[in-house]
Formats: sequence, C-alpha cells, structure tokens
Amino acid sequence: MSHDIKHKPSTLTFNPLDSEEFRRQGYMVIDFLTEYYKTIEKYPVRSQVEPDYLQNRLPKFAPDDPEPIETILRDIHNDIIPGLSHWQSPNHYAYYPCSTSIAGVLGETLAAGFSVVGFHWISSPAATELENIVMDWLANMLNLPKSFTFSEGQGGGGVMMGTTCEALIATITAARDRVLNQIGRDNINKVVIYGSDQTHSSSFKSAKIVGISPNNFRNVKTTRAHAFALQPEALRAAIHSDAKKGTTSTSAVDPIAELSEVAKEYNMWVHVDAAYAGSICICPEFRRVINGVESIDSFSFNAHKWFLAALDCCCVWVKDSSALTKTLSSNPEFLKNKATESQQVVDYKDWQIALSRRFRSLKMWLVVRSYGVNYLRSFLRSHIHMAVYFEEMVVMDRRFEIVVPRNFALVCFRLFPFAVLSHGQKFLEDESLNELNADLLESINSAGRIYMTHTLVEGIFVLRFAVGSTLTQTRHVLSAWREIQDQADRILARKMQLWGCSSS
Amino acid sequence: MSHDIKHKPSTLTFNPLDSEEFRRQGYMVIDFLTEYYKTIEKYPVRSQVEPDYLQNRLPKFAPDDPEPIETILRDIHNDIIPGLSHWQSPNHYAYYPCSTSIAGVLGETLAAGFSVVGFHWISSPAATELENIVMDWLANMLNLPKSFTFSEGQGGGGVMMGTTCEALIATITAARDRVLNQIGRDNINKVVIYGSDQTHSSSFKSAKIVGISPNNFRNVKTTRAHAFALQPEALRAAIHSDAKKGTTSTSAVDPIAELSEVAKEYNMWVHVDAAYAGSICICPEFRRVINGVESIDSFSFNAHKWFLAALDCCCVWVKDSSALTKTLSSNPEFLKNKATESQQVVDYKDWQIALSRRFRSLKMWLVVRSYGVNYLRSFLRSHIHMAVYFEEMVVMDRRFEIVVPRNFALVCFRLFPFAVLSHGQKFLEDESLNELNADLLESINSAGRIYMTHTLVEGIFVLRFAVGSTLTQTRHVLSAWREIQDQADRILARKMQLWGCSSS
Repeated sequence: MSHDIKHKPSTLTFNPLDSEEFRRQGYMVIDFLTEYYKTIEKYPVRSQVEPDYLQNRLPKFAPDDPEPIETILRDIHNDIIPGLSHWQSPNHYAYYPCSTSIAGVLGETLAAGFSVVGFHWISSPAATELENIVMDWLANMLNLPKSFTFSEGQGGGGVMMGTTCEALIATITAARDRVLNQIGRDNINKVVIYGSDQTHSSSFKSAKIVGISPNNFRNVKTTRAHAFALQPEALRAAIHSDAKKGTTSTSAVDPIAELSEVAKEYNMWVHVDAAYAGSICICPEFRRVINGVESIDSFSFNAHKWFLAALDCCCVWVKDSSALTKTLSSNPEFLKNKATESQQVVDYKDWQIALSRRFRSLKMWLVVRSYGVNYLRSFLRSHIHMAVYFEEMVVMDRRFEIVVPRNFALVCFRLFPFAVLSHGQKFLEDESLNELNADLLESINSAGRIYMTHTLVEGIFVLRFAVGSTLTQTRHVLSAWREIQDQADRILARKMQLWGCSSS
Repeated sequence: MSHDIKHKPSTLTFNPLDSEEFRRQGYMVIDFLTEYYKTIEKYPVRSQVEPDYLQNRLPKFAPDDPEPIETILRDIHNDIIPGLSHWQSPNHYAYYPCSTSIAGVLGETLAAGFSVVGFHWISSPAATELENIVMDWLANMLNLPKSFTFSEGQGGGGVMMGTTCEALIATITAARDRVLNQIGRDNINKVVIYGSDQTHSSSFKSAKIVGISPNNFRNVKTTRAHAFALQPEALRAAIHSDAKKGTTSTSAVDPIAELSEVAKEYNMWVHVDAAYAGSICICPEFRRVINGVESIDSFSFNAHKWFLAALDCCCVWVKDSSALTKTLSSNPEFLKNKATESQQVVDYKDWQIALSRRFRSLKMWLVVRSYGVNYLRSFLRSHIHMAVYFEEMVVMDRRFEIVVPRNFALVCFRLFPFAVLSHGQKFLEDESLNELNADLLESINSAGRIYMTHTLVEGIFVLRFAVGSTLTQTRHVLSAWREIQDQADRILARKMQLWGCSSS
C-alpha cells in the first residue's frame, strides 16, 4: 500500500472538535431542546405522517460540502419533528414510558463528550469503577440481597447494558452453558426455557437467538382469574412433563418466591426481568413485588423506562458473575494488560455480549445524585397516584371497565357500554367490543392530543394507559380522561345511529 | 394493590425536565466539555490510577437529597477525570480510535433529548425513515452495490446497531437459521463458522453465544508471509476437510473477492466485518479493499471508530433483509399497528436483536451533513498521511523495524536494536525482544504523554500506533515519535548497562 500516499501530511481546513465551535453549537442545541420541551404539548403526540413522508423531503445523496448547524436544526424542526411520536410529551401514555430528565440527557452528553471505551478496566478505570459503585447504590436502593453487590465480595455484582434483550441473551447464554457443561455440549436441543404466556416476547426471541430450539419454549398458561400471574403448580406441571420426556431445563422467568422454590428442585437458572416495574422497588411499600429475589440467579430492570435515564440503560445483577465470565470472556492479545492479570479489577467486556460499551454509569450517577433517593421515590409515587386517579375516573364512568387489576402506573381498561345502551346486548359479543375499542383507540391517536396503545388478553382488546412521562402532571391525566370520554361519546353516538340504538 | 395509595395526587417539588433549568445546566455541561477539550493534553493519556481508586473517594450509598450540578461537575473534574484514559486526546494511539466530533456529541444530545424509541415505524416514523435514508447515503458513499440499499427496492438495506458484536449475533443467527431450515433444527451441532486466525475475537464469541459448538469454529491459519491475509486455498482446504466429515458451513469472514467464490460453492453466508477500515472506503482510492463486496451477504463497519460518530454506532447492510426478519421478528399484540400490517414500512426491531433502539441516525445525519463527503475524505486521508509520516520516521531509525506492512492508519512496529549493539545478538532471541518491547510500551504509557497498545503476531510482540483521534495533527505524531525514541534511548541505555554492552 506504499503507493497510496502522494503528499506529505497537510493541515485540514477545520477541526471537527474545535472547542469554541463546540461551545457555540452546543448552546444552540441546548436552546433547541429547551424550546422543544417548552412547546412539546403543541405537537400531535403520535406522529400523523404517512409512510415515506421523509424520502420526499430529504436529498437522495449526502452533501459534498459542510452544512451549518443552523440549517440542520431548522431541518430537524421542519422535517424530523413532524415524524416523531413525542415520547417525552406529558400526554404520552403509550407502550411503557421512556422517561428522560435533565440529568439523563446531560449524562449522555458528557458520556459522548468523553467517548471512552470501558471494555476493560485499564481502558478507562473510572468507567468500570463508577459502574461498580452506582450498581451497588442501585442494589441498595432496591434492597436487593447483599449477594448481588460488589461490596459483599462473593462474586456478585451489577452491569449496565443497553436493553433487556442484551441482558436476556447474556443470562440465558450463561444458564445454557451451565447446563451444557453438565450434560455435554451436544445436548443443546434438550435445553428448555420456561416463562408465563405473558412473558415479554424478548425472552423467547433471546432464547431463539442463543440456539434453544423453538420447540423447547414453554409458554406456561396464565389466566385472568389469577390476574395473569404465573402459578407455581402450572410451572411444576410443565417441568414435570418435560422431565419425563428427558429434556433439561435452564431458565424460568416471572413472579418469584414460590416459583423459584420449584425451579430450585430442578436446578434451573431463574432470571427476573422487572424491566418496567423494577424501579418502583426503591419505594419500601412496593418492595414486596420482588420478594424472593434472594433465591434467584439474576435480576434486571430498565432505568430508561421509569427512572429518568433516557434511552438506553438496562441494569442487570447476578449473584455469580463467574457464570457470565466463563461464557462471555474473550482474551485477545491486544487487550492483555497487567491490571487484568492482577485479577483485582472487573473487565466488563466479559460480563456482556459486546466488547465496546458506553459510559452509562456516568448518566446514572448524574440521575441519582441530581434527584436523590427521596425525590426519586416521590417521583415514582406521583405516577402511581396519577394512575389511581385515572382508574377511579374510569370506574366512575359506567360505560367503561377495568379489565385487569391495576399494577403500578399502568391502567388496563376498555369501553364496555352494555349498561347504557338499550340494545347493548350487541356489544357483549367480544368481536364487536374489540372493534369498538380499536376504533376508539384509533380516533384518539389520530386526534393526537394523547397517545395510548393496546394489548390483547384472553381475546380481549384492552386499552393501556401508562403513566410515566417525566412531564406528566395530574392536570394532564384529567385532560386525557376528558379526551377519552369525548372520543367515546363520538364513537358511541355514531355506532348507535348505525345500529339504530337509542341512548339510555 | 388498592391499599398502596394513601393520598390524592400531589404536586412534586420540582420538575426534572424543567426547560429553563435544562438550559442553565445544559450550558454548564457544554462549558465543562469545552474546557475539557481545551485542556485535554494536560492529562496523562492513559489513566495512572490504581485499582479501587474511586471506591475510596465516593460515598458508599446514594444521596437521599438532590445535589446541585455544580457539585457533580466538580466531582467529575476531581474524581472521574483522573480515572479516564483520554480516548479523545490527540495523543491517544491505543486500540483503534473511537473518534468523536461536535456533530457526534450534539447528535447524541439531541437523540437523548427526544428519547424516542423507534422499535417500529409507528412509534416514531422519523427515526426509521431517517435511518433508511442515512444508511442509503452511507452505502453510496462507500460505493456499496445497489443491492444493499433501500432505494433498489429488492429487500436490501441498512440498519444501525450499537456494536459489531450485535451485528455479528444478528447475522450469524440469520445464517445459522438459513442452514437449519435446510438441514433441520436438530442439526445445530453441525453448523460451522470459518474465519482467519486474525479474525477479531468477537466473531467467535458471537458464534458461541448463538449456540454454535466451539468445536466448530475454524481459525484458518494465516502467515506473516502473506501479511496475515486469509488465503482462499487455506479456506477451501478447511471447508473440504469439514465437508468430508459431514459438517455444514454457515459463515466465512475476512478478505473478499476470491474467498466469496469459495464460499459460494458451499452455499455459505459471508459477512465482511470492516469495523475499523470500512470508513476509508469512502475514498475512491481505497475502495478496492472491499472489492468483491457485491457477492457477499452482509457488511458492517463502526462509525464510532473512525467516522467521528462518538460511541456507539455500528452500520450494517444486508442484501436480503428477509433473512434477518425471518429469524429476528417478534410480533406481540401490544406492538401491532396498521402501518406494520400495510407492509409499507420497515420495523427495525425485526432487523436486530433488541426491541428498543436509540435514535442513532440523527447523530449520523448530523455528522455527514456537518462535515460533508469531501471533508470526511480529507479527514480520513489526513490520518493515513500521518501514519505514513510516522512509518517513515520508524524506518529511518535503524533501531526499529516495521513488523507488518502498514494498512490504513495503523503502524505495527517494534524496537529491534540488533544493528546498533555490538553484542546485539542477544536481542535476536524472541523472548528478550518481546520483553524489551513490553518494557518500552509500559514506560511510554506510564509516562502518560502518549498511549499505545500492543499485539502478538506469530509470537512477536508488536507495538501498535493507531492514528485516528479527531484532534491529532502532524505535530502530535512528531512529538509521539520523539517520545518513543526518548523512552527507547532510556530503556536501551539501562539494558546495555545491565548486559555490559557498549553502544555502537
């Protein structure tokens, strides 16, 4: 390749990391976001664009020459913002929240500014050590058993990943290899994973990725009668049925105390994915929802969901980190160093699937310090209070029903208007009811004043109202409910006309 | 859970996303980073702290009450910065670069500020469509075949992930399942992955994660004689040996044109991981390094390495996206929506391992627009020029040798002082030479003026000088070489005294 150079080094026309230019543009971006937060309520919460809207607005090819930040910010305002669904809007109740905060955004800014790669301790010791410390802080806030902390010194500890799926791939791989080391690597087709049929699809996707046969996913059935909680006897029956057939179990997920008793009998790895609800366990009155956590192998929650962290940060704890490092270690020559050889340090690359990793602990450190434990508890409780408030309003309107008992700050309800319609019998057919609720949801989301999503449980189309955006206040919840009622009025009036019903 | 609420909704004491407070703190963080970039050269490049340095400085528990940003920034300055290895320093030549820029950092700020979750199109259409557009821009810049672009409309396209490891897990899973669909899912133990023995450890880690038996990783041997490039005949011999044994191949990695010919004969999936060098292919004179890319299945490069993007962004293209979506799709009820059903949109959750995803395309859009194609080419060429300059200086010093021909902006060299020592014969023993170079590296990194790392090829301890930091200029490279010479003088003087040699 000696022929590829024709000139001596020359000076570039400008420096992409010029400090004063960084300040100038940085202020502009901060001002832009300030304005965005100030005016966020004026945008439709769910974007109203049609597929391919952006292709028609942007050039087909990258520009040859630099464009000024002023132009780019103008284009973000004109072309990108219309295509965003505003997850930070106080009127966003869709999916689960993805809450951010001043500390979360600025923590990301600082992390990107340093852009250090903490794959092992030596490549930036502060990145690793701050993660050790903050994960212990969070473990204490959640009142996790000491066996999940570094300070206990028995091999437990926490690691920050991007998403639950990464956490699941890492822990299922560790669980799989623990079993395969006992029964032989050729028996991967005998490994089974158990979860409730309410388990998030990520679990089975992760299991499939790590090579567990899709025939070996056990979706243990749950029922509305038990509020869709996985029952220990159902889990036991499923395991028992497999054990007779000679398969081998690895991983059970979902509710804990008695379930992990069952799992222990079969030497299974138990992972509890508390992606959304984990946060609330910093409030002592809610800690009971993870009772039994002392007997499981690994635990995770997403700080980007309901903990002000901005996307992304999934906090994962394991009791026996060697189960991860045995499976996920790599030790290429170019990463060898004295600190690693001393065995006095944590090399996080061996705790996760990727080599590179972002400096997420800096962000979490900012979040926890900027708000403090007491305020964080108040913050989460305020969302629960608002969800209860919303639930009470739903209950008071005879046209609606709560479908599943409220857990945390998520209300699952639907329009169920048989009591107020003279010929309401029609609506008792599930299909018509589902259609009615789907129409209601679409008209609400198309209006754009609030954004909700749905789910289907036991064939019932359910509206989900998830409180959790940082900016949401009681007045927003009240307006949201009014909006839902208004849209229901309109839909019901239309349907009644259509079907020749008369209002009661 | 009706008993968990004791009060009506109450107002919180402050708003963690208050817009004016966001502006105030945002300016402070921008000022902090401005000052950091201005003074970055005063810090030791490789952190000089000892293990556990931070545990002794930070409190054991999270604070109960909020702490002001002023205190937190002071602590970052006093406690975190000493523990950072400064990847953005112009004197950082370790590992591969992780280059950032104003656009990269502020792109991350904007993405975290919006914190939208673009798992499918409807959850934020702009996030998906901007990624389609920017990935096509980048494909054109790299002169990838049209079959890898969305605009071709034949199922090809690009996706942004976090890391190479995610890209490898996604593509190896797709390759694995393509084979297993032909030979039956029970035959996972027959799947084989081929790479050169120089392949990054991530490939085999990823293969292990997706359940390919470690017995089925083929590290095909390369030699210094062929500059450690994988030779087609060596690959063919390895495959042939497996085929006779009845195993089935899925994935070959590394150099391309003739290799993919071999792979095609065996119906293998070929992934080219150009994590570091991919960027340079935007320069026409370097595009030849990926000649043959038209015949492969998937291609990736890391924009956070040598493309000003800040951590993290791995750009991945596939020719047949259905190979990814067949394996990685999940379609839980709560994500169902009309846009998906219309099949007019891309739902990126089905192209990657995770469900949630950050708005990385916004950052890449800022990078490409802020600098433009011409400047980006000049930027990369300037690093090549600097590496050539460094290489020329190494060649002129008789005490050093270039161990592997320079590729791109990485120079692999070592101290090899037999020519200048009367009793230099001693140094010809590899072990002493390796020790000498290890000592040299440690003394350089401990001095902290520059930071380099090493590797081992054919038993030779090699010093790696990777040019690529955004702030590096020719004068830094000259100083770095002077520093290496000074440290070599010192080490050689000490060794010669020790061994009773006299300098020539």
